[in-house]
Amino acid sequence: MKALVYHAPRLSQLGREARPRDPGADRRDRPDRLSHDLWDRPSHLKGDVPEVRPGTILGHEAVGTIVEIGAAVTTLEPGDRVLVSCITSCGRCAFCREGRYGLCTGGGGWIFGHVIDGLQAEYARVPFADTSVYKLPPELTDEQVLFLADILPTAFEVGVLNGGLAPGDTIAIVGAGPIGLATVLTAKLYTPGRIIAIDLADSRMEKARELGADVTINSATEDALARVMELTGGLGADVAVEAVGVPETFELCTELVRPGGRVANVGVHGHPATLHLEKLWIRDVTITTGLVDTVTTPRLLKLIVEGRLDARPFATHRFPMGETMAAYDTFAAAAETDALKVVLEAEPVSETRAESELALVGSND
Amino acid sequence: MKALVYHAPRLSQLGREARPRDPGADRRDRPDRLSHDLWDRPSHLKGDVPEVRPGTILGHEAVGTIVEIGAAVTTLEPGDRVLVSCITSCGRCAFCREGRYGLCTGGGGWIFGHVIDGLQAEYARVPFADTSVYKLPPELTDEQVLFLADILPTAFEVGVLNGGLAPGDTIAIVGAGPIGLATVLTAKLYTPGRIIAIDLADSRMEKARELGADVTINSATEDALARVMELTGGLGADVAVEAVGVPETFELCTELVRPGGRVANVGVHGHPATLHLEKLWIRDVTITTGLVDTVTTPRLLKLIVEGRLDARPFATHRFPMGETMAAYDTFAAAAETDALKVVLEAEPVSETRAESELALVGSND
Amino acid sequence: MKALVYHAPRLSQLGREARPRDPGADRRDRPDRLSHDLWDRPSHLKGDVPEVRPGTILGHEAVGTIVEIGAAVTTLEPGDRVLVSCITSCGRCAFCREGRYGLCTGGGGWIFGHVIDGLQAEYARVPFADTSVYKLPPELTDEQVLFLADILPTAFEVGVLNGGLAPGDTIAIVGAGPIGLATVLTAKLYTPGRIIAIDLADSRMEKARELGADVTINSATEDALARVMELTGGLGADVAVEAVGVPETFELCTELVRPGGRVANVGVHGHPATLHLEKLWIRDVTITTGLVDTVTTPRLLKLIVEGRLDARPFATHRFPMGETMAAYDTFAAAAETDALKVVLEAEPVSETRAESELALVGSND
Amino acid sequence: MKALVYHAPRLSQLGREARPRDPGADRRDRPDRLSHDLWDRPSHLKGDVPEVRPGTILGHEAVGTIVEIGAAVTTLEPGDRVLVSCITSCGRCAFCREGRYGLCTGGGGWIFGHVIDGLQAEYARVPFADTSVYKLPPELTDEQVLFLADILPTAFEVGVLNGGLAPGDTIAIVGAGPIGLATVLTAKLYTPGRIIAIDLADSRMEKARELGADVTINSATEDALARVMELTGGLGADVAVEAVGVPETFELCTELVRPGGRVANVGVHGHPATLHLEKLWIRDVTITTGLVDTVTTPRLLKLIVEGRLDARPFATHRFPMGETMAAYDTFAAAAETDALKVVLEAEPVSETRAESELALVGSND
Repeated sequence: MKALVYHAPRLSQLGREARPRDPGADRRDRPDRLSHDLWDRPSHLKGDVPEVRPGTILGHEAVGTIVEIGAAVTTLEPGDRVLVSCITSCGRCAFCREGRYGLCTGGGGWIFGHVIDGLQAEYARVPFADTSVYKLPPELTDEQVLFLADILPTAFEVGVLNGGLAPGDTIAIVGAGPIGLATVLTAKLYTPGRIIAIDLADSRMEKARELGADVTINSATEDALARVMELTGGLGADVAVEAVGVPETFELCTELVRPGGRVANVGVHGHPATLHLEKLWIRDVTITTGLVDTVTTPRLLKLIVEGRLDARPFATHRFPMGETMAAYDTFAAAAETDALKVVLEAEPVSETRAESELALVGSND
Repeated sequence: MKALVYHAPRLSQLGREARPRDPGADRRDRPDRLSHDLWDRPSHLKGDVPEVRPGTILGHEAVGTIVEIGAAVTTLEPGDRVLVSCITSCGRCAFCREGRYGLCTGGGGWIFGHVIDGLQAEYARVPFADTSVYKLPPELTDEQVLFLADILPTAFEVGVLNGGLAPGDTIAIVGAGPIGLATVLTAKLYTPGRIIAIDLADSRMEKARELGADVTINSATEDALARVMELTGGLGADVAVEAVGVPETFELCTELVRPGGRVANVGVHGHPATLHLEKLWIRDVTITTGLVDTVTTPRLLKLIVEGRLDARPFATHRFPMGETMAAYDTFAAAAETDALKVVLEAEPVSETRAESELALVGSND
Repeated sequence: MKALVYHAPRLSQLGREARPRDPGADRRDRPDRLSHDLWDRPSHLKGDVPEVRPGTILGHEAVGTIVEIGAAVTTLEPGDRVLVSCITSCGRCAFCREGRYGLCTGGGGWIFGHVIDGLQAEYARVPFADTSVYKLPPELTDEQVLFLADILPTAFEVGVLNGGLAPGDTIAIVGAGPIGLATVLTAKLYTPGRIIAIDLADSRMEKARELGADVTINSATEDALARVMELTGGLGADVAVEAVGVPETFELCTELVRPGGRVANVGVHGHPATLHLEKLWIRDVTITTGLVDTVTTPRLLKLIVEGRLDARPFATHRFPMGETMAAYDTFAAAAETDALKVVLEAEPVSETRAESELALVGSND
Repeated sequence: MKALVYHAPRLSQLGREARPRDPGADRRDRPDRLSHDLWDRPSHLKGDVPEVRPGTILGHEAVGTIVEIGAAVTTLEPGDRVLVSCITSCGRCAFCREGRYGLCTGGGGWIFGHVIDGLQAEYARVPFADTSVYKLPPELTDEQVLFLADILPTAFEVGVLNGGLAPGDTIAIVGAGPIGLATVLTAKLYTPGRIIAIDLADSRMEKARELGADVTINSATEDALARVMELTGGLGADVAVEAVGVPETFELCTELVRPGGRVANVGVHGHPATLHLEKLWIRDVTITTGLVDTVTTPRLLKLIVEGRLDARPFATHRFPMGETMAAYDTFAAAAETDALKVVLEAEPVSETRAESELALVGSND
């Protein structure tokens, strides 16, 4: 089976002998075919996520069609076209019951390509499918919904909602990679007064402006803090979103936010930051961190159906599943390729083959 | 002095002998010239607001320039161009301290044209000016900001915010008069999935579509409840806003809202409605009423400055102050004239005259 | 099998031939023994809940021990002592995902004794057990936790939380039956300034004072509205909770609540009420209705474990399961018996018998 | 006039020649007599608050009687007994309008003993009195309400409310000085499941238990993190409150809080802390900082009136105003004296003298 496998410390060769395990007699699980995209937060490569075992199939974003379902699955049928979320929710633990699926203690959370095999393969097994996948309306294309698997809810929940953005606010977004740009896009749902995007790369600035940023600041050549203060009459931004994952950008966020404002950290960090409590203790600042819960996925899907949200510009490159390594190379060289999200396309799989394959989506265990 | 005076039970002749009272020795108040608009909720005419004494100058929406200030005013200066809000806030009572200016017990609340002389006059005295008027940026025209005095914050606070509207929601707005249309306009700040406007007049439907309604239903010729259910897969709208002020439309709102949804009443009512608790007790419905507080006026002003909110289409007719009765006739015949808001324009007043007039804006008493 | 069966229009004889259906080959469900209590909102008797078919076993509150589990159940084991909630949650529908289990569209909601057989029987089958029952710590007695099945979360969620009670507030609770009294008890979790209980029966007033009411008003002999106004300096109560279910008490709540306050309806209504919008439109009142969701059950259980919440005084009478009709008589004659909640106690069931019975708790279908 | 004056870098001699400045012809301000307490956060001594100019009268907590009022004051009268809040609110700036008085940009905020003369004097001038003092019911003693001036609202707003405490939660409070102990006291208003207090001094632990802590941990002799994890089944506390003001205790709070929990910083910090984002980015933690706004002062006052909140145990020592230096010595040696709050008592001042003194409370400038 074609798949993208992690061979630490380097990324990973294509293909793997073993298929997803046979689910056994009393558990009929379901194979699927998926279209995938590459991971936007390549923390594996930075070594920030040490838990991943070599040999694990990577990938946690997919759109596909269900081929077979497990016995416990009650709300899905083979043939359903679904979005597979980056976050799996057992639906039963205390965290899932509160809508905090990212903190699931019942076997879910961020597991694909992390603690179980991921989705960059021709077939994948999806645990807790009833509470972890979303049926898709037929009128939407794969690329219209694919980014609902991760970057849209991540940017929206961990950036925009944690940031408490309200109409008229000034939001400063530090980092204009895919997550930062998705924050620009989803911030517009709350009609801020001004969206300021800050990055080091002019090409990403241009993308930020295309997606809705009102002001862009290249922090390599400008004093970002001074510019934000100038733009806000010396007050600071109402909301600051960290979308890079290094201490410097986090600290910048705590400096450019106004008294009473909010700093929402979205970046995946490998190192501690300095928190200037000697200045911040009196400034009424709220700082949030978080993994996405994907509770807003149905809401964002509605917005796509209604034509209010369009994430297709994120798909800058497309590769067939058999060329996954070329896809990763393109993604890794984003500075030259201007890649944002690279889409992997699986070939349509015949039903016959699917039935014999027993590759799996959707058990409850 | 030219002014619009209420002579119950009919509306009212133009002009009045008396000027605003002299503020006395230790209280220098301030005259002003204002541009006005007519009242969008003519409850006086229906008799729903019995407290208004004959002889009262009407009007509670104005943009003007301060001519003189009272001794206690600390944040405004003569020459400042300001918006005068329909709601006066003493800034000191328990309600004002909680941001509920509409419930002010310290002498504010809705007082203009209600318990004190209103703003449809060449000069007006504005109590508690520090906490009841808003300085305007010079680049904005009067008509860009005039509707901030009432209908924009009313629609936004009492309709959209009380309704708890969130991105992707379906909102049904019953009534497409000025307040209903302002609800259409400000609902878009939260990017609903679908805005449904319901009214009896096709001309207002057209206006609703121009301002952003996705679907319009003429309830004279269509079964509005059936249409909403059809549009929402039988579930009902997430948010229903009553913007008419009669029992039938309120009851419609409680029927077309989904389980777990919210009904926000904005209409001014003269009669009780029937609340079908035998159906609603189990449906998790929230119903809100309220007068506007105008706490969001600064936020809405920012959105106008940034070009995110444009209420100019509400100004359908303009009259000089001397033709106020014609303006009211136009407004009263809205079915023929398609009038939404009728703007009264005062002539510029010379500084000399202003100083001698002692007409008043901005005391603290 | 002993059970309490509804024979409309009268309540119902004890015992029924048929046992819960055999779950079939691929579905092993689980029998249980339960201790029960009687229904506190006898709307069946008033005819307010017309959906119940004659022949249905009644009851929706129970504590018991699991004897067998269905194949899909993953978080429970035979032998677990559990609380069975009055609300069943499928855990998969959009409402359940938002914590609105009472509105479950996946086969749950209020189903026991309503659309499926209830819990006043020696054995019962509990659908969606993983998301509808709660494991109990061994140190708690049945009576310490039994009222978590319905009246405690109902009073807390639909009364106290919907009412937005905050420390220092004055809360007026209209109706001092079991639900009203449970509202008194759970309101104390937010340390209101004053709890006012209003009812017609002096014996219930006394109970209200025992449970924490600061002031009681007998509305048969006193003008409740006048008393509340006197107690609140003419302002009204911050929060009013309707816990009776008739139009008069609901209307009283809308009169005695202060401007800006909240009316939380908990009562089960059979008739419409009059909503005085001609007074309320300007008073910023929020009115909520709702069936309990039981999302707070784990939180309330923690409070019982920590000794912060004690609902044992609600258990005024106890009967063995075989005397259910006597129990109902006692409950029906509450005016004479002062009954609040009447507990039915099942005899311990031997494991052997249980295994052969195939009476059922806990399927996923 | 007797007063406590700051002579940096050491605290400060008693007495000062100059009286509060004469308010001038058109500004009649008001003298007062006050009972005071000493500052509980002696950041002056640590050098954390460099803005204080030598020669400034210290103190920002007082109860007193108004002797004279400024011309702009409309809601107070000479003879009114009032609480003077540590935070002054101009009532007019954008922050005050949002209830964030601590961030007031109109001349208020924390100004007493900081940027203007404070309250540890026989007379004091209180700017913006209408929005910065609270009338007191005659039945309450000075000591019942004195701690409403600072530590009660600080602990409640910056600790308990920012921490989002809810009934049943486990709250860990790091630091059992006056602010930490006030957090114990006000946390109880939300009926947490368990209050854990952590400090180095056994005498403060005992006080914490007296005031309501369920568990105390001496972090000098015990591993506080390990104990909290043991007490919470390895999960961590729902809410952690930092009430010391040093990096170590802040970092401890970020370690002992559960995923999805909240860290509320109340301490005044002089140095930066390390924020372990490499662990926290995925843990959904919310961190808040803030100066008190005192918006909850009326609510807390109601709770004192109703007997629900009793802060009198904080007053451990009392001194006449003339012995202020002895009072400070007692406070500084808290390790030996077990002092929590030291109350300074002014002698009653005759009306005659007061009127001639022109010492001042309550202007609007």
